[in-house]
Amino acid sequence: MMTDTARRTPGKIVLGHTNYGKSDIRLVKVFRNQERHEIKELRVDVSQEGDFTAAHVEGDNTDLMATDTMRNTVYALARDHLTTSAEAFGIELVRHFLEAAPRANRVSVRMIEYPWERIEAAGRPHEHSFVRGAGERMAEVTGDEAGNFGVEAGIDDLLVLKTTNSGWAGFLRDRFTTLPETDDRILSTVVTSRWSYGGATDLDFDGLWEGIRRRILESFTDHYSPSVQFTLHHMGKAVLESFPEVEWIHFSLPNRHHLLYDLERFGIENEGVVFHADAEPYGLIEGTVERSS
Amino acid sequence: MMTDTARRTPGKIVLGHTNYGKSDIRLVKVFRNQERHEIKELRVDVSQEGDFTAAHVEGDNTDLMATDTMRNTVYALARDHLTTSAEAFGIELVRHFLEAAPRANRVSVRMIEYPWERIEAAGRPHEHSFVRGAGERMAEVTGDEAGNFGVEAGIDDLLVLKTTNSGWAGFLRDRFTTLPETDDRILSTVVTSRWSYGGATDLDFDGLWEGIRRRILESFTDHYSPSVQFTLHHMGKAVLESFPEVEWIHFSLPNRHHLLYDLERFGIENEGVVFHADAEPYGLIEGTVERSS
Amino acid sequence: MMTDTARRTPGKIVLGHTNYGKSDIRLVKVFRNQERHEIKELRVDVSQEGDFTAAHVEGDNTDLMATDTMRNTVYALARDHLTTSAEAFGIELVRHFLEAAPRANRVSVRMIEYPWERIEAAGRPHEHSFVRGAGERMAEVTGDEAGNFGVEAGIDDLLVLKTTNSGWAGFLRDRFTTLPETDDRILSTVVTSRWSYGGATDLDFDGLWEGIRRRILESFTDHYSPSVQFTLHHMGKAVLESFPEVEWIHFSLPNRHHLLYDLERFGIENEGVVFHADAEPYGLIEGTVERSS
Amino acid sequence: MMTDTARRTPGKIVLGHTNYGKSDIRLVKVFRNQERHEIKELRVDVSQEGDFTAAHVEGDNTDLMATDTMRNTVYALARDHLTTSAEAFGIELVRHFLEAAPRANRVSVRMIEYPWERIEAAGRPHEHSFVRGAGERMAEVTGDEAGNFGVEAGIDDLLVLKTTNSGWAGFLRDRFTTLPETDDRILSTVVTSRWSYGGATDLDFDGLWEGIRRRILESFTDHYSPSVQFTLHHMGKAVLESFPEVEWIHFSLPNRHHLLYDLERFGIENEGVVFHADAEPYGLIEGTVERSS
Repeated sequence: MMTDTARRTPGKIVLGHTNYGKSDIRLVKVFRNQERHEIKELRVDVSQEGDFTAAHVEGDNTDLMATDTMRNTVYALARDHLTTSAEAFGIELVRHFLEAAPRANRVSVRMIEYPWERIEAAGRPHEHSFVRGAGERMAEVTGDEAGNFGVEAGIDDLLVLKTTNSGWAGFLRDRFTTLPETDDRILSTVVTSRWSYGGATDLDFDGLWEGIRRRILESFTDHYSPSVQFTLHHMGKAVLESFPEVEWIHFSLPNRHHLLYDLERFGIENEGVVFHADAEPYGLIEGTVERSS
Repeated sequence: MMTDTARRTPGKIVLGHTNYGKSDIRLVKVFRNQERHEIKELRVDVSQEGDFTAAHVEGDNTDLMATDTMRNTVYALARDHLTTSAEAFGIELVRHFLEAAPRANRVSVRMIEYPWERIEAAGRPHEHSFVRGAGERMAEVTGDEAGNFGVEAGIDDLLVLKTTNSGWAGFLRDRFTTLPETDDRILSTVVTSRWSYGGATDLDFDGLWEGIRRRILESFTDHYSPSVQFTLHHMGKAVLESFPEVEWIHFSLPNRHHLLYDLERFGIENEGVVFHADAEPYGLIEGTVERSS
Repeated sequence: MMTDTARRTPGKIVLGHTNYGKSDIRLVKVFRNQERHEIKELRVDVSQEGDFTAAHVEGDNTDLMATDTMRNTVYALARDHLTTSAEAFGIELVRHFLEAAPRANRVSVRMIEYPWERIEAAGRPHEHSFVRGAGERMAEVTGDEAGNFGVEAGIDDLLVLKTTNSGWAGFLRDRFTTLPETDDRILSTVVTSRWSYGGATDLDFDGLWEGIRRRILESFTDHYSPSVQFTLHHMGKAVLESFPEVEWIHFSLPNRHHLLYDLERFGIENEGVVFHADAEPYGLIEGTVERSS
Repeated sequence: MMTDTARRTPGKIVLGHTNYGKSDIRLVKVFRNQERHEIKELRVDVSQEGDFTAAHVEGDNTDLMATDTMRNTVYALARDHLTTSAEAFGIELVRHFLEAAPRANRVSVRMIEYPWERIEAAGRPHEHSFVRGAGERMAEVTGDEAGNFGVEAGIDDLLVLKTTNSGWAGFLRDRFTTLPETDDRILSTVVTSRWSYGGATDLDFDGLWEGIRRRILESFTDHYSPSVQFTLHHMGKAVLESFPEVEWIHFSLPNRHHLLYDLERFGIENEGVVFHADAEPYGLIEGTVERSS
């Protein structure tokens, strides 16, 4: 056990790590100087890290950028710099803030992008009307004073389900184990995934994201799953094998339990047909698949 | 102004209208005795109305069905009676509860259905793997002891947006009016709609729902919108004209304001390009389009 | 069963009931011209009903008040008219809108008030620092052109729980009933209540609300509960008996099931000690207690 | 800029860090063998880290504890080991899981505790009836195979507001800065705080939590706040000075902007009286106050 000497003889009280910024900036850009309109909807969080001791300790705000200024900046730069991917826009924002904020030595821009699809009208995609699709796309760009960049992307809120080809057996049994084994169950999860492109800033981020999402979905389907853990590694491996641009990929996979409802009590047979989709509690399996050095 | 005599001389205290039931029953059914699996996911609320005075006033539960029994019943009947639409399943449930619950003289079953689409793998739709789509489908069946049925259906959480062909002008101006007029704005709303099939119980509810959803989307796109009010009536009329099965249709349309961000302050031109998607407050426009007698 | 003649021979398509307004106006007022500051936080929804056919059908906005104007008005009138209760403020708002909006013949103002309590500092309540308390207070005022007013108040999000003195037995049993009877269980619910003061506009709404809330809590504790239904009627009766100002009171009571966890499987005795607080499904019991004429 | 050599010449694909467990276990314990009942409500998340490679890569579940077993264990151990604080219960759970799970070398138990207060009835606190209070208490215990423990506690969802004695001036101005300076504004935030007791496992965790919460509230009130940053450091310093048991304290403070509503446009004076409580975007200020070594 840790000694708690430190606790008994406390040192001087100091400011530790700090960061601040503007969260939940809701931005919509319309691309209208073209035959067919396009739109991009982003929710942006800006965060600056650095030496903000003067403000924290002495109340001296001289070198603090107001978070309101960060907001104005995001809208202003969107005008000319949000032209392709969220990632490319994030890189421009990070560059700007590193220059404009004298005390910030590291800046992060985190973006959620909401998918909009064209409405079909009169048999063809409409030129300026859209309907929101499912799921969310994530992008996060971090940069520092030394010019290092890191670009991550991700998926939120992607619900998937397999009606078969999944089981859970051979696990540890102890005094408190009551769960029976099964070699055929429903497997359902809400995929939250993050992956890294390392320091690369010039990739086709839109094309990569589409490809990685498709690869995750495909590799969810193509094997017998003996556990969520196995499927996690299997999907991660599939992405890293197909996309050399990806350094690592992390998954957070809640196991949305589907429990066969006991209808035998009523004399009704129920072999894998009627399930209760349990809301809580849920198993949560998390892990990273990466490249060894 | 109302007299408040009633308030000063209160009458006898009595039980008024009551209802009770089970809410948030989460049901998944797998159709597996076929070449390709299918699934249906419903969230079901059961509600019974009737004369429950004995339980409320005397604590006599003799004729009360436990809400736990309602839950069991929903899962049990799903085994054989959830074969086509949620509406058809709701009709069976209502029939059952009217018979099984001696004091219930009116029963409602409300269902939310979540859309699941097949995952594309190896270039074709997978046989047992699914991904959740956007939006929600609603169905509500009500029946009474006299054998009358009412079937309603609806859409929740359908986000739509037009980048042009919408304005807001010529409205009332008073001392507190500051909003400028515009003939070109973003129009965005989250469509919540309910409609009635009257007492018909034998319709192609799945086909109708798909058709009505498509009609709503199309009629959102096909006109210049001088107000959300106009678009509401326009969409409702389009549905009633195309679908004689529909008696009335109700819309609840929050006006999700998109405010052009003022970039002129920074010397940056912004003609309909960069918008702030405001979260609150929001205009809320509601109305019904119906058939006259 | 209803004939569906109407459906087969649809009549003319017409506009039915409509209403529109501004929702989620977030207002904070500081009372600072006094020894100790006070604050009031309201979330306000304004809704107007009337004959808005010209706007809906012809796109003529001439007599439509912009919802943005409604927002401005709420803030502007708060300056001088939000002095005591939310209800009294609502009455002023309704009067204003009935006069200002030429086509509105009925106006509703719905308000949620959030409770703020003084922070205790140095042993006494601080003069300008506050901490948010639990629960929400509701008030709704409706008025029409003829000068009739209706005032309702309510409680949202009041969680209560009894560890004993509650049971559920003697209920109906059928083929699908598996629930055992019990004469000692946890009873827990989230009280949502609405009540009416009729047309009275000059009551001590703040004092009444405090008293009614206290009466609901007390009457939740003071009896053996054979069902949620019984407790609903018991609480309603208690309020109507104590407060002649109240015409009727409605409760919506989700039964938040607490299931004794089966520890006997592990050789551990568990008589009413360890429970699983189930999130879903939940029983939902609703009813009104009123005065007979 | 980072070289992206690694990306171009990917190494072998391997499993990185993993963890898994059960989330959202909802537990209520009644203490009934005493004159007056007491209750404790916890939401528990269990997480195990370790070498789970066999399961992830080979589908071998031999050494995996089912998350269902974790759930059973939490309820079972609550019977005898949830007697005082959540922290003390967490320590027992961590010890159990480290022993029972052969591959886990580090275990975390995260708990949210919901406050329940006695209902006042007939002028005194009732013996078995409770009402939920505001806010949430957090506790997290982590332990490893080597016997090291770490205990953290925290506060969630504590809304505070000052009507005066707060400003924001003297900050950095650049091209995109439009915010005016102020020396009198509303300061409002939702305090989320975490702090560490280091490796100490035998403290009066309940008493400490109450004291720290009170200290945070008091130190929020007792100074002129030139920025959220300053107040963050000020509150952290106050806690560390008063409680030597605390090694560090972290705050996450969203700046819930209250904007003075412009009523001058309508000829209405509004000096610090009527505010719009903006929902988004919000400034987010985060930081740690700690002891130097």
